[in-house]
Amino acid sequence: MTSGLQLIAVPGIPLVRAGDDLAGFILQGLATAGVALKDDDVLVVAQKIVSKAEGRLVDLTTISPSARAEELARVVRKDPRLVEIVLSESRRVVRAVKDVLIVEHRLGLVMANAGVDQSNAADPHGPPFALMLPKDPDASAARIREELRRHSGCSIGVVINDSFGRPWRVGTVGVAIGCAGLPVVLDLRGDPDLFGRSLQTSVLGYADEIAAAASLLMGQADEARPVVLVRGLKKDAPHQSAQALLRPAGEDLFT
Amino acid sequence: MTSGLQLIAVPGIPLVRAGDDLAGFILQGLATAGVALKDDDVLVVAQKIVSKAEGRLVDLTTISPSARAEELARVVRKDPRLVEIVLSESRRVVRAVKDVLIVEHRLGLVMANAGVDQSNAADPHGPPFALMLPKDPDASAARIREELRRHSGCSIGVVINDSFGRPWRVGTVGVAIGCAGLPVVLDLRGDPDLFGRSLQTSVLGYADEIAAAASLLMGQADEARPVVLVRGLKKDAPHQSAQALLRPAGEDLFT
Repeated sequence: MTSGLQLIAVPGIPLVRAGDDLAGFILQGLATAGVALKDDDVLVVAQKIVSKAEGRLVDLTTISPSARAEELARVVRKDPRLVEIVLSESRRVVRAVKDVLIVEHRLGLVMANAGVDQSNAADPHGPPFALMLPKDPDASAARIREELRRHSGCSIGVVINDSFGRPWRVGTVGVAIGCAGLPVVLDLRGDPDLFGRSLQTSVLGYADEIAAAASLLMGQADEARPVVLVRGLKKDAPHQSAQALLRPAGEDLFT
Repeated sequence: MTSGLQLIAVPGIPLVRAGDDLAGFILQGLATAGVALKDDDVLVVAQKIVSKAEGRLVDLTTISPSARAEELARVVRKDPRLVEIVLSESRRVVRAVKDVLIVEHRLGLVMANAGVDQSNAADPHGPPFALMLPKDPDASAARIREELRRHSGCSIGVVINDSFGRPWRVGTVGVAIGCAGLPVVLDLRGDPDLFGRSLQTSVLGYADEIAAAASLLMGQADEARPVVLVRGLKKDAPHQSAQALLRPAGEDLFT
């Protein structure tokens, strides 16, 4: 494995609007920073700007909540229109109590509010908006990767990350919701340990660790650092989809 | 926040035995790498070497499993002596099915096997050993920090990390089980977002993200990289214990 890593917040990414060219912003930011892409670099891009570029904003005033959304909104004490959007993005409700609505997103992600977010989504002086996850985050990552390859000639990886809460632990951590051009889960179960005993627990959530590392630089309130370059990762394992990080619901002990 | 991070695997850490001076190994490794410590550096140290230095190995042949351990061992299909040690380190069993034993460790950590590990713990040609978590990982981190301060004059942070599985997601990620000299959870709930709306979900599991980032360099099979220096973190928030990352059991939805 690697013996050193460098993480660089790509400077100068502007506020993103629907239709914006993220790869273009990233290349411009890297040029400003005087950084030339290299093969095996990984770019971690915050979900929020990918969603914005893809026009995943919904005007809440256009939403008529269903009876089910109204009822659930009373339990979780959230805007029924927001709950309606969450339900439309979800396969099932996992937990619903005061202030907390955990669902299985249609992509298979178990997460709060189906990733639907009101903060930083739009100007509060305009109508209220909510921002949904990208339609297909793996495809979004692949598109950004392809654009960057076209301009730089380099084979890089792209991770789209979001911040997830966890059972039992306080605070959110960055996780990978879309990936292209890198291994996502590393299975070391065949490798012997230092004494030749085979490793017991050694499937690594590799892309989630990359997402968490990048999240250290991204902050939350300041959207000026939504892209982080990670340099020094060297993994020859096959590339995977972010779906490789999802345990099949039937195999999970915490449904 | 920071705009760049550097992670360096500290070279030359030897196989650790009970009583070894970890801070000494770390200082020697840093000298080999030509790296001088700076204020605000954070050293992430793998739980396994801390446990070894503290003599947390148990010879399995000395353990007589209780009836409860025997019964549980049949369910989870593990060595009853190992299960006895796991129970002795735990407050309660959270889930027990074939191949999986999730407990609440006496420190409050919800984790597989109470962190008791057989891989890399000792020579397989000798008697079978198991390795337990440090008795008090915050105290272990504080001791390493103090030793490093005494020798370097620098105020650094120390994180002791371990690899945890997660509900719903495949693969382990690094988490912080012991901390000294750094903020552990960042509460940004008071900060406004870019449009002045106050942030909704903005308690960050900061030390867990540091632990995950370092884990990218540590690998699992190769114990030559159990210490990682993280440089570039700049957080003025108050220092905390790793206990700040534990949600009180009564407030959790996945008991």
